[in-house]
Amino acid sequence: MSTTALPGPIAPPARLLMGPGPISAYPSVLTAMSAPLVGQYEPFMTATMTETQELYRGVWSTRNDATLLVDGTSRAGIEAAIVSLVKPGDRVLVPVFGRFGHLLAEIAERALAEVHTIETDWGQVFPASVIEEAIVRVKPALLALVQGDTSTTMLQPLEDVGELCRRHGVLFYSDATASLGGNAFEADAWGLDAATAGLQKCLGGPSGSSPITLSPRAVEVIRARKKVEAGIREPGDESSADFVRSNYFDLGQILDYWGPRRLNHHTEATSMLYGARECARLLLVEGREAVIARHELAGRAMLAGVEALGLVVFGDVGHKMSNVVAVEIPEGVPGDAARSALLEDFGIEIGTSFGPLHGKVWRIGTMGYNARKDAVLTTLAALESVLRRFGAAVPAGGGVEAAADVFAAAPAALHAPGAPAPTGAP
Amino acid sequence: MSTTALPGPIAPPARLLMGPGPISAYPSVLTAMSAPLVGQYEPFMTATMTETQELYRGVWSTRNDATLLVDGTSRAGIEAAIVSLVKPGDRVLVPVFGRFGHLLAEIAERALAEVHTIETDWGQVFPASVIEEAIVRVKPALLALVQGDTSTTMLQPLEDVGELCRRHGVLFYSDATASLGGNAFEADAWGLDAATAGLQKCLGGPSGSSPITLSPRAVEVIRARKKVEAGIREPGDESSADFVRSNYFDLGQILDYWGPRRLNHHTEATSMLYGARECARLLLVEGREAVIARHELAGRAMLAGVEALGLVVFGDVGHKMSNVVAVEIPEGVPGDAARSALLEDFGIEIGTSFGPLHGKVWRIGTMGYNARKDAVLTTLAALESVLRRFGAAVPAGGGVEAAADVFAAAPAALHAPGAPAPTGAP
Repeated sequence: MSTTALPGPIAPPARLLMGPGPISAYPSVLTAMSAPLVGQYEPFMTATMTETQELYRGVWSTRNDATLLVDGTSRAGIEAAIVSLVKPGDRVLVPVFGRFGHLLAEIAERALAEVHTIETDWGQVFPASVIEEAIVRVKPALLALVQGDTSTTMLQPLEDVGELCRRHGVLFYSDATASLGGNAFEADAWGLDAATAGLQKCLGGPSGSSPITLSPRAVEVIRARKKVEAGIREPGDESSADFVRSNYFDLGQILDYWGPRRLNHHTEATSMLYGARECARLLLVEGREAVIARHELAGRAMLAGVEALGLVVFGDVGHKMSNVVAVEIPEGVPGDAARSALLEDFGIEIGTSFGPLHGKVWRIGTMGYNARKDAVLTTLAALESVLRRFGAAVPAGGGVEAAADVFAAAPAALHAPGAPAPTGAP
Repeated sequence: MSTTALPGPIAPPARLLMGPGPISAYPSVLTAMSAPLVGQYEPFMTATMTETQELYRGVWSTRNDATLLVDGTSRAGIEAAIVSLVKPGDRVLVPVFGRFGHLLAEIAERALAEVHTIETDWGQVFPASVIEEAIVRVKPALLALVQGDTSTTMLQPLEDVGELCRRHGVLFYSDATASLGGNAFEADAWGLDAATAGLQKCLGGPSGSSPITLSPRAVEVIRARKKVEAGIREPGDESSADFVRSNYFDLGQILDYWGPRRLNHHTEATSMLYGARECARLLLVEGREAVIARHELAGRAMLAGVEALGLVVFGDVGHKMSNVVAVEIPEGVPGDAARSALLEDFGIEIGTSFGPLHGKVWRIGTMGYNARKDAVLTTLAALESVLRRFGAAVPAGGGVEAAADVFAAAPAALHAPGAPAPTGAP
């Protein structure tokens, strides 16, 4: 690249991101991303790390001391959890109900686990009894279960699974990347041993930081595999023969960096930390229950809107995540061309899907900052216009009207992100 | 955390980061970090990824097509390079001249390589002949060599090593995290097969993205270990038995995501991409040679300043990185208390070191945005004040004067970051 050909500063186009994620970040999260950097070990930095841990305890609904961030995208958190909990040869059970179940199996396979999967049709979830049956048969060390699989939009119920795992002596890990913040998640009440997520879905931030929480039982397993780097090892730092086959994803080391010992591991990604902190802070300021209710409302309005446009919803709607809906691309409408028109003419992004659903469905998200009335209605108006342009018969204004009716019947406080109403005031 | 106890938006204190990194980011890099997000596969996003690759070819001085970012901190790039290039049982040779040599050995060990190290005293580097001798003896598949080890401030000469490796059929990888952008690095001319870095040193950005470049020979090795995820596998996607023991760090998959196939892997960390792009753009707008010369000048001025304050410089000064100097903490001065005073009273951060040098030296950096006259002189003035407060005998104004003399003798264009003077103008 010659000097004359050098580009200018980054100048992204205006976009309303209504796909399955990443989605438009909350404005204050973007502001936080540009806050000045500080030193790695200065009091403000370590205090911010500790504060962020406490904020994420609120997000995960947990008292787990081991609640922190992995520096990387959501699959960095997944890999850290799996390689730190699973030794080569350990049995891992993965119920697969979409692409991300395959991903958990793939990551466990790379960690040289003995991987067992059970599968159900895309668009369905597993009854707890089917999972228990497989646990009894496979006797895994770890159950790895996606909560919300964006590839199908399904939300796997988790509330009975932790008790099952406890009864059979199985560690219980869930990938909540697509669902956390937009659907209920109760790390302690549901008996999770490990859970990971990303910022780029309902938490309303950029991809690049993966929140994780670990139960005391999980921490014990990880601590037994301890290995301290030669360059910073001190007397008494013994290493286990079962050490984790990754340095970057060794949660024992990462815990020592986030914990009181502050043992150097990576250099914490300061801007991503600031962003992750703001995502959690916004969620707790608005109130976890209120944010989940806002996602439920926006999702229900979008569902009503697409149905009123005559689109066929994919999968078991009773087990859909609040924050994303998949609709079949109508016969005769060129799916990718229609998506491009939506992007180019309206600045609105929706997604297609993977594997068996690629080119067959569109996925429309209502997440984080974009789980709000104007985003839903604008998307439906633009979608109606594009569908008509490509020859689909759609009722004029029907989608917008149906969605507006859903919002009208709900409290105005849930129409858009915001702080809770003041309490205790006269 | 109760709602009443929730913290406000992030508000970091003002800091001049003059340690061994992370350092204060360029203002326009922070601005780029807060640019709005776009969708993962939209034309602007994929064009920005491609543009960023081309910018980093300029930074690395390479024509390698496989020039991209790994989403994580600098050690994510290191681990990606090592686990993708090295199979379990492969021999890896690591010359260790500081903490980060130990880190490369540790990462290779976790990848189950047969790791051989040679060591030299901290504060020294290796002559090429010693490296060749070890190559002949060990016959490694990979030589993993740190360029600049911040723990000791030493800069290992690499220019003759690539030819050596080529002659003996060894892959040549270097970790340039601490040195890239502030010291010469010629990926192609020096025969590198793989090199990785981070943004938080001379590139002047936040930690959290790791630039990497791979020679065609390295790509061939990586491609032979191909494995495509079950969830997105298509007919003809065969998997190798020698697959990489990590999904996140499988450079074959990451190349398919950055390459024309755009095969989904992680969700690219958009804000970090924007920041990484701006780091490279600034470097090329100012000019790679000019930026290296600015680091050389700021480093030389800082060296003259600390010497004029009577501080003893650690290590082989002839092989020091431009961008950091280590000085022995004077007898009787409490090192950590003095560093705290510098931070609390002047807002200036300098560092100590690791292992054998912990508490024995301070490390003072002049990197990226902070490789400039006012940052150097301010740091020396504050350091003089703090040294005197803690009882050290220091010449009044001597450090500032010595450094100012160095700057006065050099072109003003190198005193601070900036665009090159217009050329061709009347």
